[in-house]
Amino acid sequence: MTEALKVAIAGLGTVGAGTVRLLAEQSDIIAARCGRPVRVTAVSARSKGRDRGCDLGSMAWFDDPVAMAREADADVVCELIGGADGTAKDVTVAAIAAGRHVVSANKALLAHYGTELAEKAEAAGVQLRFEAAVAGGIPIIKALREGLAGNRLSRVYGILNGTCNYILSIMRETGRDFADVLADAQRLGYAESDPSFDIDGVDAAHKLALLTSVAFGTKVDFGAVHIEGIRHVSALDIKFAQELGYRIKLLGIARRTDAGIEQRVHPCMIRASAPIASVEDVYNAVVAEGDFVGRSVYEGRGAGAGPTASAVAGDIIDIAAGRQAFTFGVPAKDLQPLPKCSMENHVGAYYIRLMVVDKQGVFADIAAALRDAKVSMEAVLQRGRAPGEVVPVVMTLHETVEASLNDALHRITAIDGVVEPPMVIRIEAL
Amino acid sequence: MTEALKVAIAGLGTVGAGTVRLLAEQSDIIAARCGRPVRVTAVSARSKGRDRGCDLGSMAWFDDPVAMAREADADVVCELIGGADGTAKDVTVAAIAAGRHVVSANKALLAHYGTELAEKAEAAGVQLRFEAAVAGGIPIIKALREGLAGNRLSRVYGILNGTCNYILSIMRETGRDFADVLADAQRLGYAESDPSFDIDGVDAAHKLALLTSVAFGTKVDFGAVHIEGIRHVSALDIKFAQELGYRIKLLGIARRTDAGIEQRVHPCMIRASAPIASVEDVYNAVVAEGDFVGRSVYEGRGAGAGPTASAVAGDIIDIAAGRQAFTFGVPAKDLQPLPKCSMENHVGAYYIRLMVVDKQGVFADIAAALRDAKVSMEAVLQRGRAPGEVVPVVMTLHETVEASLNDALHRITAIDGVVEPPMVIRIEAL
Repeated sequence: MTEALKVAIAGLGTVGAGTVRLLAEQSDIIAARCGRPVRVTAVSARSKGRDRGCDLGSMAWFDDPVAMAREADADVVCELIGGADGTAKDVTVAAIAAGRHVVSANKALLAHYGTELAEKAEAAGVQLRFEAAVAGGIPIIKALREGLAGNRLSRVYGILNGTCNYILSIMRETGRDFADVLADAQRLGYAESDPSFDIDGVDAAHKLALLTSVAFGTKVDFGAVHIEGIRHVSALDIKFAQELGYRIKLLGIARRTDAGIEQRVHPCMIRASAPIASVEDVYNAVVAEGDFVGRSVYEGRGAGAGPTASAVAGDIIDIAAGRQAFTFGVPAKDLQPLPKCSMENHVGAYYIRLMVVDKQGVFADIAAALRDAKVSMEAVLQRGRAPGEVVPVVMTLHETVEASLNDALHRITAIDGVVEPPMVIRIEAL
Repeated sequence: MTEALKVAIAGLGTVGAGTVRLLAEQSDIIAARCGRPVRVTAVSARSKGRDRGCDLGSMAWFDDPVAMAREADADVVCELIGGADGTAKDVTVAAIAAGRHVVSANKALLAHYGTELAEKAEAAGVQLRFEAAVAGGIPIIKALREGLAGNRLSRVYGILNGTCNYILSIMRETGRDFADVLADAQRLGYAESDPSFDIDGVDAAHKLALLTSVAFGTKVDFGAVHIEGIRHVSALDIKFAQELGYRIKLLGIARRTDAGIEQRVHPCMIRASAPIASVEDVYNAVVAEGDFVGRSVYEGRGAGAGPTASAVAGDIIDIAAGRQAFTFGVPAKDLQPLPKCSMENHVGAYYIRLMVVDKQGVFADIAAALRDAKVSMEAVLQRGRAPGEVVPVVMTLHETVEASLNDALHRITAIDGVVEPPMVIRIEAL
């Protein structure tokens, strides 16, 4: 049997400790599958003493992960520290410079510096891999980069953040409000104490930027992602969505359009029968649409020690077996620039909820505003009457360019009797 | 740029012609993704003259695919002829003997001779790959063999035959009978004129045998698959399934049990909320359950020129990029024998439909038969009364070993007033 592949692990949090445990427990099957053993030779974390439920006895300990990346007796360095720069970036750069492969679970780092790090890795002749950075329980990066490599993709989209999907699932099941469900999710450990990265869509946008690059052969461009989170989604909207036959999901969507590649993260209404509408709780899902393959759907856990360690192990096993791939599917230097698509040019259908005073003439004014903006209504939901009181009026709009929608919203907001800013959710045809 | 990878294609039916077309249309992206061009240098089919919608001008023509496998100027031979032996096997063996890689879409051949062919390929230092043989629209072989390789799998199951799934979907939507829907499916080209391979479960069993081998590291053992088809599923059963909150699907299931690996293909009742219950029409789906990854779900088209060509291309691209893998995930010589699990030892829940004469005492006799066989009822559905007439009685049974169920059925069949052999469908907890 060939010599063991030696692995150094930077970061022993949930994912790092899970990876050490996986590589120990599965050493027999891993050796059989790669034709050689995989051995953890070095680890680095902040506190040496802490019990992490895994035996570190045989491994060299480094207080400084950057020194480990430079000096450890290792073929591969796993960067499981996290964070968009700082130590995580230093570890990655140092490992590449030292001629070691890097396996990363760090979506933030790669969303910001992915192209440049991939160029460095390819110039140094080492692999930079990141299956664990996007939906750990789904080998989606491998599927896009290798399995579906014979296809031109037209659209890739998915449920990329388990925290948001959990919150929206529970809101739908219980009818409770966002803040209330978020507080519960925090108590249960499904949301961080500072949840903004998740609920404001930033985490999903990091992942989407990586998917886009692999799917379309474009430079990683996190700055080009249009991002909206789920804070403003109300129990009322979820109820109306149900009535209209929709579910509300936070989706990341990358789509080839005439104007370039659209990248956006925002709450969407999708048909209850859509392929991923029934993906609930902390599960993630990704759909790829290709010219030959058609629709290909993937679903699994998005986070947690097990699924993420499984993804890290998949990358390590590929390296051990000698399977090489360009980080983003094609040589990093050949990745194309991605001109930002303005959301003003986005064409789609929309859900709008207005809060209006129930009095004569308001609805006629709204209809006129839509007409003047050249936006056409598909359906309207208004239940009962409550003269003089504020009631919700819900409409769905036919496909229109977002600039026209914004014009309509501007006109509607000015109507006397419309008492809150309109709530808008894009309807996505999946 | 490195030299082109040269591909010979045996068989120019739907899949072969689709593959030629894909490799021509996508030559730019394929070259970018593998770092070298891929070129079809030779083709072989029965009739040279036929128009297949693809340009064969630059390719050497062989009337004899075996001669092509032996003599063509090619690094890879794609076996897209089909059939469990005969020419397809000769082509595969000849290509391996000539030191060429083989990409196969042939589930029947591999289900029967997979282990032996993989041994030959590995001894010859060439790749034998078969992504296209199982659910073309889903890169599931790659996912099991590489992406999830850090996991010990406990169960792999799925909807593996599009024809059956289409028929069952339409039966459910329309309430029509099996024979009727089959005839329509034949007219529409979704079922063959001789549909027995599909509807009797053989095609799904071929695919399951391959999935089992990759998932569990066992020798391919088609003979060990318990196979039942869908001919006996009636509109009545589909209606009762709906009422009980289930869907009926033909599933292929491979499961690790204390007695070994269970491999079975049969109609199943699954909860309407199960991850693949809403996979309809010609779509396939596969679920893998691993110790670290948890549940990982894959869905896509099972057949057709596009999805199958996409899968063939994925394998060719891997070979072009120099990515190697053992055919069934571990060296073929290390694949473990798979002792056949008798269905008598299967433990599960069951749906039973009896046709009984509505008269005093029959139900008491049935209840006594179940009690005597030590089988316990979960629920019973009997609607209205029709004294003296034959009415359906539907029961669901708690988990029991299948030997006890068979004992109960034997006793029930002997009851005066039970007028047809009982209809039994296994309930699968997914």
